[in-house]
Amino acid sequence: METLSVRTSSRTDLRDITGEVAAAVAAGGVSEGICVVYVPHTTAGVTINENADPAVRSDIAATLERMVPWEGPYRHSEGNSAAHVKATLVGFSAVVPVTGGRLALGTWQGIYFCEFDGPRTRKVHVRVIPAH
Amino acid sequence: METLSVRTSSRTDLRDITGEVAAAVAAGGVSEGICVVYVPHTTAGVTINENADPAVRSDIAATLERMVPWEGPYRHSEGNSAAHVKATLVGFSAVVPVTGGRLALGTWQGIYFCEFDGPRTRKVHVRVIPAH
Amino acid sequence: METLSVRTSSRTDLRDITGEVAAAVAAGGVSEGICVVYVPHTTAGVTINENADPAVRSDIAATLERMVPWEGPYRHSEGNSAAHVKATLVGFSAVVPVTGGRLALGTWQGIYFCEFDGPRTRKVHVRVIPAH
Repeated sequence: METLSVRTSSRTDLRDITGEVAAAVAAGGVSEGICVVYVPHTTAGVTINENADPAVRSDIAATLERMVPWEGPYRHSEGNSAAHVKATLVGFSAVVPVTGGRLALGTWQGIYFCEFDGPRTRKVHVRVIPAH
Repeated sequence: METLSVRTSSRTDLRDITGEVAAAVAAGGVSEGICVVYVPHTTAGVTINENADPAVRSDIAATLERMVPWEGPYRHSEGNSAAHVKATLVGFSAVVPVTGGRLALGTWQGIYFCEFDGPRTRKVHVRVIPAH
Repeated sequence: METLSVRTSSRTDLRDITGEVAAAVAAGGVSEGICVVYVPHTTAGVTINENADPAVRSDIAATLERMVPWEGPYRHSEGNSAAHVKATLVGFSAVVPVTGGRLALGTWQGIYFCEFDGPRTRKVHVRVIPAH
């Protein structure tokens, strides 16, 4: 299992980690299987989405903010409940097939670490499982 | 890895692909393991839900539309930001255990391809991983 | 594959099942791999989130309720459409790396069964897949 370090730069920060995950897959030497990208935090998650227009990422972030506003009403005393809810909505793992030794991402897909309570330095685990 | 082709027929279309996924699992010959259903697009996803009353699917589609309206405000110039957000909310993969050579779905569960920017012809990858 | 039984006690009930899942992983004897926690229902799901302050869980439940109100408008005649939508939003599986024979959860992470139409007795499948 490889563990990446991700430095985020604002409260909400959808950060492209496709290259780092692809490198971990290449290093793993598995030709056919799956790759699990796992976020071991509770106010950050991981998703897949468009790798072309950065406006897609800002639209995702802004829409999540409208759905789950930072200002409550919330009970959790740390004041970051919205980040916990957003992480549950996008999820803590992405599972992508590996074929021919590479991630089987679609043409327009990238893998995004989703910071919802930054800026922080975060960890991401990358685990590759063979199909045979 | 098997790749299915899915033809959707409207902008939002939750389409039952349980039979095709089950056939791919049967063809794979794995008795105990997991099945990963993966959508390599950015405006479509995959979920699991009730296979009995089709009103459940229309309620899911309508509720997502209320949460993430097609009309902005969005920045992405292609005009389909809502579809990107909805795909991130439902997710791009479904992971289902395989036991006795079959999907371990619950009695009322079906697997649904979730089109959010159709109609289009889409791909779905099905990857089976053995437990031993 | 191990199957847990979970008894929920209210309509919405986010229930910590980390201990039971960890025990299943330990019993499986896999040192390096992944653990798939799978919910075979359509009005319940599974998520990961903070294991310290229980207010986080009540904030997640309350925010989902604001996003997806129990009272419609819905078409599904059973009256529990909101539970179906919430389950699709949190998802039906959690995938967590296993390393050194244990779940690679972050310090603050717990695994939560998410009941959205209880109280009921529910099942959860736990499947461990080795990396080698």
